[in-house]
Amino acid sequence: MNAPQPLTELHGPAHQWFDGILHGSQPVQRRAMAKAITLLESTRADHRAQGDALLTALLPHTGQAFRLGISGVPGVGKSTFIEALGLFLIAKGHRVAVLTVDPSSTVSGGSILGDKTRMEQLSMREEAYIRPSPSGGTLGGVAEKTREAMLVCEAAGYDVVVVETVGVGQSEIAVAGMTDMFVLLQLPNAGDDLQAIKKGVMEIADLVAINKADIDKNAATRAQAQITSSLRLLGMHGNPDHATHGALWQPRVVQISALLGEGVDGFWDAVTQFRTQQTDNGRLALRREKQSLAWMWERIDAGLKQAFRQHPAVRGLLPTLQADVAAGRVAASTAARSLLAAQGTNHSL
Amino acid sequence: MNAPQPLTELHGPAHQWFDGILHGSQPVQRRAMAKAITLLESTRADHRAQGDALLTALLPHTGQAFRLGISGVPGVGKSTFIEALGLFLIAKGHRVAVLTVDPSSTVSGGSILGDKTRMEQLSMREEAYIRPSPSGGTLGGVAEKTREAMLVCEAAGYDVVVVETVGVGQSEIAVAGMTDMFVLLQLPNAGDDLQAIKKGVMEIADLVAINKADIDKNAATRAQAQITSSLRLLGMHGNPDHATHGALWQPRVVQISALLGEGVDGFWDAVTQFRTQQTDNGRLALRREKQSLAWMWERIDAGLKQAFRQHPAVRGLLPTLQADVAAGRVAASTAARSLLAAQGTNHSL
Repeated sequence: MNAPQPLTELHGPAHQWFDGILHGSQPVQRRAMAKAITLLESTRADHRAQGDALLTALLPHTGQAFRLGISGVPGVGKSTFIEALGLFLIAKGHRVAVLTVDPSSTVSGGSILGDKTRMEQLSMREEAYIRPSPSGGTLGGVAEKTREAMLVCEAAGYDVVVVETVGVGQSEIAVAGMTDMFVLLQLPNAGDDLQAIKKGVMEIADLVAINKADIDKNAATRAQAQITSSLRLLGMHGNPDHATHGALWQPRVVQISALLGEGVDGFWDAVTQFRTQQTDNGRLALRREKQSLAWMWERIDAGLKQAFRQHPAVRGLLPTLQADVAAGRVAASTAARSLLAAQGTNHSL
Repeated sequence: MNAPQPLTELHGPAHQWFDGILHGSQPVQRRAMAKAITLLESTRADHRAQGDALLTALLPHTGQAFRLGISGVPGVGKSTFIEALGLFLIAKGHRVAVLTVDPSSTVSGGSILGDKTRMEQLSMREEAYIRPSPSGGTLGGVAEKTREAMLVCEAAGYDVVVVETVGVGQSEIAVAGMTDMFVLLQLPNAGDDLQAIKKGVMEIADLVAINKADIDKNAATRAQAQITSSLRLLGMHGNPDHATHGALWQPRVVQISALLGEGVDGFWDAVTQFRTQQTDNGRLALRREKQSLAWMWERIDAGLKQAFRQHPAVRGLLPTLQADVAAGRVAASTAARSLLAAQGTNHSL
């Protein structure tokens, strides 16, 4: 890979943070990471330009980490499991970053998942970096900031990045779209299963972990059999990420008890096997490439739509036309063409 | 509803077609409908302006028909069923239009569903109007043309409009988004069920009809029970179109045999009950309103994206930046911002 030319020169504090992230001692590095992530979260145009320059400079130092997405409904035990996993990985010599995509933060500006005290032991470890969900804006905006924070963590040498989210469908698709492997935590309940399929989440899961297996071993074993057969049926008709050529990954179901710390090693074995296989058959690199391009187009769409809504002529026409369309006085496509013409958009639809 | 002012004056042939559609004798009306739909399918700017004027003039004469979406995988027996249903409805005094959204036509320009000879008896009836899928363009473009053709049929007094599509997920979502009721035809196979859930189609079905029930009555009855319970589980967590207030529609499962013409009356009873209930509780009007607004925004998005891709500065930059993003040399969000800036798009992402 060629070393890239930053789009604008890194200067002043951003340059300092760049050095701090790559080479700083622990407290210097943490401070530089926090500053860099804050810069990247800013929407001020001059900050964005500096942020883009910093990101481009950091980019050659990223990509070595394994990116693990973890999701599940509230109460499934995500925090407890991630803490157990994080401590297990640190004991094996890894450095672990934990980031969060919290869809509720896009509405309220406050984060239900962001509380560091949820992972008290992990957050005290030098080898762990925990950052709550960015807040405000759209889910796409929150996801973008999390992706960028992930790159900062990777440049700082964190070699496992966990991105967690709650089970609300859209945010899970976003997290699967920024990670190398997507894990769904499930409770040992029937029915749960169908909900995950309905939201399109089961079919993007590379691994399903049934948590709280200690509480009812029989239920957990039934759930394991049931979900395994659902995954097989879903796979039959082809998840393009699972079924093209080479040695293919068959999504797997494991049992864990985050509370008792049981099953973490088996879980990590499965993750390691996935990583090895996907690296060998080239699917990991392909997945990242697709993700980057999809991310680019998602951001372009968001920018086009924002500019459209803010255009003075569109803002002037939209309320009346929207009312006309809702009342059936103007056809939707006619209204769309009128609004695009008002913005001066040159199209041939 | 106030009579709208056409955006531009109707003149020349478009004015003639307008009269023909509303008041023409059978051959005159058919010819005017065909001409109008062809005009609406054109992408020439002057045709589009005339088409929009015609559409706006026709709009007050639309909306009285019932719009029925029908979908199912190839081989499920859609044509046979729609022919049986159409003849049944004509015998009851209805006039029936059959339109098609064929996703394969967007790729090949040719239509796998468009053959009128599929419904030989129905196509010979004066009270039926059958039009194959428009071809070419995106699925969104095909869907738009079908929506507009639907309005032409309604203005011409067809009081039941059937829009059919094959079971490929995306096109089914598009058809559900332009109809009052969405019906999924299923074969009496287990597993089918899960596939429909996976694609998010089962949860948008207002009615599921198990076809070919004559071949294996036991299998059909098992499938009916299984799908009924899946629908109940899916409904629990809320399809917003099914679960707000008032008397709510519970999606139903019926058995039919299109070949033997069995179950068509029971099918139509269910449709009629749905229509009455959704009209009384106001959900039919609400659904149409939401559909129109969603359609407007879908077309705006498509126009913005098309203009973006055709912008000279974007076309100049895109190949290099896309390669840089794929290779990990430039962050996706940085590339998106560069491209938006090249187009002169004013945003703050």
